[in-house]
Amino acid sequence: MSKRVLTGVTTTGIPHLGNYVGAIRPAIAAAAEQNVESYLFLANYHGIIKCHDPAMIEESTRAVAATWLACGLDVERTTFYRQSDIPEILELNWILTCITPKGLMNRAHAYKAAVQTNLDAGQEDQDFQIEMGLYTYPILMTADILMFKAHDIPVGRDQIQHVEMARDIAQRFNHRFGKEIFVLPEAKVDENVQLLVGLDGRKMSKSYGNTIPLFQTPKQRQKAINKIITNLKEPGEPKHKDESPLFEIYQAFASVEETREFERALNEGLAWGEAKKILSAKIGEELDSKTDAYNDLIANPSRIEDILQAGASKARQEAKELLAQVKDAVGIRALK
Amino acid sequence: MSKRVLTGVTTTGIPHLGNYVGAIRPAIAAAAEQNVESYLFLANYHGIIKCHDPAMIEESTRAVAATWLACGLDVERTTFYRQSDIPEILELNWILTCITPKGLMNRAHAYKAAVQTNLDAGQEDQDFQIEMGLYTYPILMTADILMFKAHDIPVGRDQIQHVEMARDIAQRFNHRFGKEIFVLPEAKVDENVQLLVGLDGRKMSKSYGNTIPLFQTPKQRQKAINKIITNLKEPGEPKHKDESPLFEIYQAFASVEETREFERALNEGLAWGEAKKILSAKIGEELDSKTDAYNDLIANPSRIEDILQAGASKARQEAKELLAQVKDAVGIRALK
Repeated sequence: MSKRVLTGVTTTGIPHLGNYVGAIRPAIAAAAEQNVESYLFLANYHGIIKCHDPAMIEESTRAVAATWLACGLDVERTTFYRQSDIPEILELNWILTCITPKGLMNRAHAYKAAVQTNLDAGQEDQDFQIEMGLYTYPILMTADILMFKAHDIPVGRDQIQHVEMARDIAQRFNHRFGKEIFVLPEAKVDENVQLLVGLDGRKMSKSYGNTIPLFQTPKQRQKAINKIITNLKEPGEPKHKDESPLFEIYQAFASVEETREFERALNEGLAWGEAKKILSAKIGEELDSKTDAYNDLIANPSRIEDILQAGASKARQEAKELLAQVKDAVGIRALK
Repeated sequence: MSKRVLTGVTTTGIPHLGNYVGAIRPAIAAAAEQNVESYLFLANYHGIIKCHDPAMIEESTRAVAATWLACGLDVERTTFYRQSDIPEILELNWILTCITPKGLMNRAHAYKAAVQTNLDAGQEDQDFQIEMGLYTYPILMTADILMFKAHDIPVGRDQIQHVEMARDIAQRFNHRFGKEIFVLPEAKVDENVQLLVGLDGRKMSKSYGNTIPLFQTPKQRQKAINKIITNLKEPGEPKHKDESPLFEIYQAFASVEETREFERALNEGLAWGEAKKILSAKIGEELDSKTDAYNDLIANPSRIEDILQAGASKARQEAKELLAQVKDAVGIRALK
C-alpha cells in the first residue's frame, strides 16, 4: 500500500540555495518514488502568523510556488495546493481546537521559547507581545495533516513535537467520538538531510545574511559566489578543502568523482578565484535551465495560479469528504 | 441609517419558558422595529465547545431553530442562519487569531473562572482539563460579530467583555493593516431584561432543574405548572403575590390590568390550585398556536433546513465579500 507524505512550506521568504539543497531537491526526488502519494502545500495561513507584510506574503507565495515547479515538481503525481484555497482546513482547525487540551499548547516549543525570551528580558507578563497565532498554530498544523490522512510527515528534529501533537489530537478525537476517522501521522526525520553552508561557513540561513539566491543569471551568481570567504593563500599554494565553505557547496552539486577532482585541484594550488568560477559553473549546470523556467513562471503568474487551482480542486474534493465525516461525528449536521 | 444588530444562540439545549420570556420574545420584538437590520444565528460551532454529545447538538439545533420560527421570527427581515453554514467565519477566525494578543485571552472571564475552579480544588496545573475551545472562543465570537459589520450586540452583563474584545481586535486589525475594514461593535445591555423565575422561585435555569418547557400540550403544561411551589394556605385564605413564584410567571404573560386582577383574586383567597389553572390558561393563550407551529416544524425538519439555507445564502454573500477584503489586506491573494 502506498504511503501518503505531506509537506507544508511557509510563505514568508524567497527560497535560497540552502532551501534548494536541504529541502526542495530531496523532497522532489522523494515525491517521485514509487509507492508514495505526495501532498505539498503553500502554508500561507501559517505565513501570516509572524509576517504582517501582505506584499511579502504574496511575493513569497508566488516565489515558493514557482520555485518548486521550476525545480521539477511533478504536479501529476503530487497534490500541490495553497492552504488558503482549502477553507475546510480552517473549519477542521476549529473543531480540533474544541478537543485540544490547553496544557498541550502550553508545552509547545515555539511558545515556550517566546515565554523564555520574555522572562530573560525581565518581563513581568510572560505572554508579553505573544499573539494567539503563535500559541495555537500546532492545532492548524494538525488540521493540515489530518485533513489528508497523511501517514508520514518529513520533518526536522525541531518539528517532531508538532507531529506528535497531531497524533495526540487525532487519538483524542477518535476516542471521544468513538470513530476511527483520523489516521495517526508519524514524524519521519531524515537523518541524512543536507545542510548547506553559507558564504561565511555557517549554516546558510536568511537570519545570518549569508545566503546565495537560488535563481540568478550566471553573472549574478558569480558575483554572489565571489563573496564566499577564503583565506589569503596565493594561486599555486596548496589549499585544503576545509579552508573555505566553497568546497562544501561544490560537493552539494557535483558527483563524487568531480568532488574528488576538485579537492585534488585545490591541494595542487588552484587559485580561489578559479575555484569560484568552477563552482559557479557547476551550480549553473544544475540551475540555469531551472532559472529560465522560474523566470518564465514569475512572468506568467496566471500559469502558477492555474496549477494551484487544479491542485486545490483535487485536494478540496478529499477535504470535503473528510470534513463531512468529522462534522457529522460532532453533531454539526443538516436537519432531516 | 439603520443599525445592524446581531445575536447568536448556542445550540446545546432545548429552549424553556425562561429563554422565551428573557430572550426570544424581546429579540423578536426588537427585530421587528424600524431602522433595525437584524442577524440571528444558531451558534453550533460554539455548541461543540462544551457539549460532546452529537445527538444533543443536532437536536438542539433543530429545537432552537423551530422555536424562533414558531415564535414569529420574520425571516424576511432577519437574516437567520446556522453558523456552520458560513465557513468563511472559520477562516476569519484564524486570521483574527493571528492578531489577537494572548494576554487578552488570559483575561477572559470564562477561562479565568475555569482556572479558579482548578486552583480552588488544589490542582497544581491551573489549566487542568481546560480545552482550547473554552480558551479561544472569544476570537470566534469576534469573527461572528465582525463578519457582518454589526454595530449593536445585545448582551447580558456577563457578555460585555466579549464585545469589548471584539472591538479591541477589530481596532488592532484596522490599525495594523491601515484599513477601516471592520466596524467597531458595541455591547447593548438591556437593563430591563426580564428574568423569569422557575418552579422554585430562583431564576429559571436548566442548571437548577426548575424549568417549565416552552412547548407542551395544555395538559402537560398544567402538570408542569402544578409543580410551582406555593405555601399551605387553604382556598379562601388571603394570599400575597410574593408567596409563590406563580405570580411573577403570570405577570410575564398578562397585561397590567390582568395582573392587577390576578393579584386582587389572590388577596381575596383564590385557591393555589385555581391560580395554577388560570396561569396555565394564560400561558396557553400566548403559546398554544406557537406550539402547533413548533410541532409542525419539528415534524418537517426539511422546512427548517430550507429556511436556514436561504438565510445562509444571504449571509454568505456578505461574508464572502468581507472575507475577500480581509484576506487581501493580510496578503492571502490569488496570483496575477
